[in-house]
Amino acid sequence: MKSQKANELVFLPLGGSNEIGMNLNLYGYGPPDARKWIVVDVGVTFGDPTTPGVELIMPDASYVEGLDIEAIVLTHAHEDHIGAIGWLWPRMKVPVYATPFTAYLVREKLRDADILDQVDLREAQLGSTLKLGPFEVTFVTITHSIPEPNGLAIKTPLGTILHTGDWKIDEDPVIGERVDVELIQRLGDEGVLAMVCDSTNVFVDGVAGSEADVRVKLAELISTLKGKVAVACFASNVARVDSVVHAAEMAGRRVCLVGRSMHRITDAAKSVGLLRDIEGFVNETEAKGYPKEKILYLCTGSQGEARAALSRIAEGNHPHVSFGEGDSCVFSSRVIPGNEIPIRNLQNKLADRGVRLYTERDHPGIHVSGHPCRDELKQMYQWARPQIAVPTHGERRHLLEHCALAKDMQVPQAIAPRNGDMVRLAPGRAEIVDEVPSGRMFVDGDMLVPEGGEALRERRHAATNGVLVVSIALDSKGKLATAVEVRGLGLPGDADYPLGDALDDLAEKAEDALDRLSREDRQDDTAVEQMVARTLKKASQQIWSRRPIVETVVLRV
Amino acid sequence: MKSQKANELVFLPLGGSNEIGMNLNLYGYGPPDARKWIVVDVGVTFGDPTTPGVELIMPDASYVEGLDIEAIVLTHAHEDHIGAIGWLWPRMKVPVYATPFTAYLVREKLRDADILDQVDLREAQLGSTLKLGPFEVTFVTITHSIPEPNGLAIKTPLGTILHTGDWKIDEDPVIGERVDVELIQRLGDEGVLAMVCDSTNVFVDGVAGSEADVRVKLAELISTLKGKVAVACFASNVARVDSVVHAAEMAGRRVCLVGRSMHRITDAAKSVGLLRDIEGFVNETEAKGYPKEKILYLCTGSQGEARAALSRIAEGNHPHVSFGEGDSCVFSSRVIPGNEIPIRNLQNKLADRGVRLYTERDHPGIHVSGHPCRDELKQMYQWARPQIAVPTHGERRHLLEHCALAKDMQVPQAIAPRNGDMVRLAPGRAEIVDEVPSGRMFVDGDMLVPEGGEALRERRHAATNGVLVVSIALDSKGKLATAVEVRGLGLPGDADYPLGDALDDLAEKAEDALDRLSREDRQDDTAVEQMVARTLKKASQQIWSRRPIVETVVLRV
Repeated sequence: MKSQKANELVFLPLGGSNEIGMNLNLYGYGPPDARKWIVVDVGVTFGDPTTPGVELIMPDASYVEGLDIEAIVLTHAHEDHIGAIGWLWPRMKVPVYATPFTAYLVREKLRDADILDQVDLREAQLGSTLKLGPFEVTFVTITHSIPEPNGLAIKTPLGTILHTGDWKIDEDPVIGERVDVELIQRLGDEGVLAMVCDSTNVFVDGVAGSEADVRVKLAELISTLKGKVAVACFASNVARVDSVVHAAEMAGRRVCLVGRSMHRITDAAKSVGLLRDIEGFVNETEAKGYPKEKILYLCTGSQGEARAALSRIAEGNHPHVSFGEGDSCVFSSRVIPGNEIPIRNLQNKLADRGVRLYTERDHPGIHVSGHPCRDELKQMYQWARPQIAVPTHGERRHLLEHCALAKDMQVPQAIAPRNGDMVRLAPGRAEIVDEVPSGRMFVDGDMLVPEGGEALRERRHAATNGVLVVSIALDSKGKLATAVEVRGLGLPGDADYPLGDALDDLAEKAEDALDRLSREDRQDDTAVEQMVARTLKKASQQIWSRRPIVETVVLRV
Repeated sequence: MKSQKANELVFLPLGGSNEIGMNLNLYGYGPPDARKWIVVDVGVTFGDPTTPGVELIMPDASYVEGLDIEAIVLTHAHEDHIGAIGWLWPRMKVPVYATPFTAYLVREKLRDADILDQVDLREAQLGSTLKLGPFEVTFVTITHSIPEPNGLAIKTPLGTILHTGDWKIDEDPVIGERVDVELIQRLGDEGVLAMVCDSTNVFVDGVAGSEADVRVKLAELISTLKGKVAVACFASNVARVDSVVHAAEMAGRRVCLVGRSMHRITDAAKSVGLLRDIEGFVNETEAKGYPKEKILYLCTGSQGEARAALSRIAEGNHPHVSFGEGDSCVFSSRVIPGNEIPIRNLQNKLADRGVRLYTERDHPGIHVSGHPCRDELKQMYQWARPQIAVPTHGERRHLLEHCALAKDMQVPQAIAPRNGDMVRLAPGRAEIVDEVPSGRMFVDGDMLVPEGGEALRERRHAATNGVLVVSIALDSKGKLATAVEVRGLGLPGDADYPLGDALDDLAEKAEDALDRLSREDRQDDTAVEQMVARTLKKASQQIWSRRPIVETVVLRV
């Protein structure tokens, strides 16, 4: 059939369309058997207490390996858009395009992964256009909470896609340009087939607000503070950093950066000409020489991260910075869902030292989101007027609500694929035409392993139920060569029943179980292990109401 | 010295004054060496993903065991006020006083703990007064999100304490009485020495709002819904349950209760004469026979609890209730901090089925808090006019902010003890005069163990780093009787380095390490274990960048 060989334009999210984070998007053009692809963003997300030992999570990119990819194109330098580049680039080995600020931070990641010399990393200016096989890709200036963010206008013979990236409409973003409305409207006039768009704040009415307003609020607040001042914000929000520095200057304070990523990002910012007209930062040792009212510490750790600057200050174990009665800490940040408990603990520790806290909740306006709220989404639909709305960068709830909003905005079609759903955008009506392997990969013990892997499952089981280690030495006839030894890991004892007694009782039960085995079975390691495991799980249920992992080792001596 | 023998009035929080939850408060009267005590509330708090295997947490009550206690007096039936009664009553063995609704639920707990027949549980009516040794205790009617809540007016020869319990000012609480303002004002006129007061919402301006307003909002919302309707709320909020039933009636729907605690609490409510004038509930099997527009499911599980009704409906594995496209779910509840992620997962699963969600966030007014906001706190200070403000029921941040608010309200003294701080309220100026053992106890494997106990520490370590089990059979001279066996739990492998290969390599390293030991050391189990552990931790660091628990068992054969 000829029709099977017709060119198609497809969108395939492998990350970012079941969650906020971990973005990995593919666009394909051509007939099914000879498609050319571009990859947009290669992000990570982070582990939480339910994934002990796993800090980094990224999309399963196995499907990508067989594809004919022209390039990886990045939209900005947040971790959920670039964090997997060191892990996943080796599976694609294609040129990488990014704006200079993003490229600076990507270079660091490639250096950490020891592949910097292998990667063809090319800087693209905002507003510039690349030809990537059948795709003509223009870097569209938008505004977001990081320098040099860009959307992508992707022109193909079957129509133009506007991939928004993460964006908001900030009329005064403090650093960088405003949204290139003219270009987006022109695209709209020429006809946008599909808009693939940020859904983060689809449940929030109104607009996100401007960095310029935060700048004013921060200056107002900081001018009223006595004692030492710490401000916590996301280091990558260079506009915010600039505003804090400005506020400090207005209040007659010098700024000391505390935390590794503050230094890393300000270096990146300076490399592209930002933060140039500000007075130099003072270092931590110098800062100690300043009177309390003359210093401001700009800190990492707004999310309660245990090893970040602010947590160490709160614990009182930072080598150079100490806070106490009469000092102030300003959280110019939001609570990322999942971090509520560490942030609460951090704030209680600071309060306990007598540090006065200022948060977005009690001081509205000292933080704004970098993502579009409903009025901004509506505005973007009015500018771009796509035929198809494809929400991304959201959980299922966000994507579905975003579809409803797009329909209210008279977009003819809205479709919300899940990670792994291949959407044919053209020709014909948009629809999901295929489902490819997708999922999450965990960095576990420096190895990239599938989400449902054995290792984490065992660790979780051990975390809840504990472990019994049973060692049995048998001679070749199956006779015990010495007493069975039972050790417990993560199992409690109390005054009524000390752990040692419990383990002795279990060892006795294991020996009884061996006695009950036939002579043949006692010569079979698997039979011995199964019998012992069954017996000790049952006994543990009686003692602890739980079934630990029973690791039985039979040594034949 | 005579003065050492003088009577004193003291307050001692053992729970609730570092956290919201786990309340355990003591009041003592008499000279230090012959004090009489009453205990107010014996609550629990709940484990989270950072305490794997631990679901129940309660105050360390070891200090209580030596005391001369007159009685336990309860303020209401929430778990954070009564949940530890089965565990801690045996350490006190004194009469327990509670309002009838509270007593009903306490009786269930005592039955579960198998001590119902031992406990002298006495019902006290709201407004009644008890003589408990030197304490004259009056049950003060207040309003809260559960039936029959009470504050306590505690009169002693050295002054009167108003212990508020959990409260709000609800002018129309739907069920039960309004706050007994007259009594509180009379106490104020007579002189309140100290007010020990709820701090939960001290950061929230205005007032919490009335259950009657929620009733109207729920009826409005539910009348607009098509398809099946589920409403999730806290079962213990019987006024809310009543309002949902009322809203269902208005919308021509019958109500089906789903979830064990819905049945448990409605039975308790009926036992004290509540929920009597409503049409009977239909059971889950009957409900299936009703048209979609004629049924409303009132569910447990608003916090995303995995085993609760709503999660099972969202998963599609509830035996009798199925929801899908066109159905609605109303969350008449708040997000308890720490539950953000399970609630998010629950809501995404429901959205994914096509269920429309209604939450407090997008539909303000369908839930109100049961705790006093700032305007209510101010009102209470105006009524009671205490000499001393003692904030409780809060984290450190809340307690300190509450002290500041009390000072703004012209309270002469405000003091925020931590759990374990003994506050002398009289005679003289209030101050912390002692610090007694306190902390948290965990129910771990059915045993009550200290928070910092070995078992949980090991489980957490295993959860993050995994376990290596090394079994070594040595003869009496220290010669290997068979090859060393190394097993891994929770350790990953990948295609480049399969786990089996890693474990073989580790076994070889362990044997090399043994070879390097002197003949004497090989006869010493501890020396062997230490050498092997050190060697394998180092090797693991190279393979996995982590240091697992190394459990080495030496069998002498």
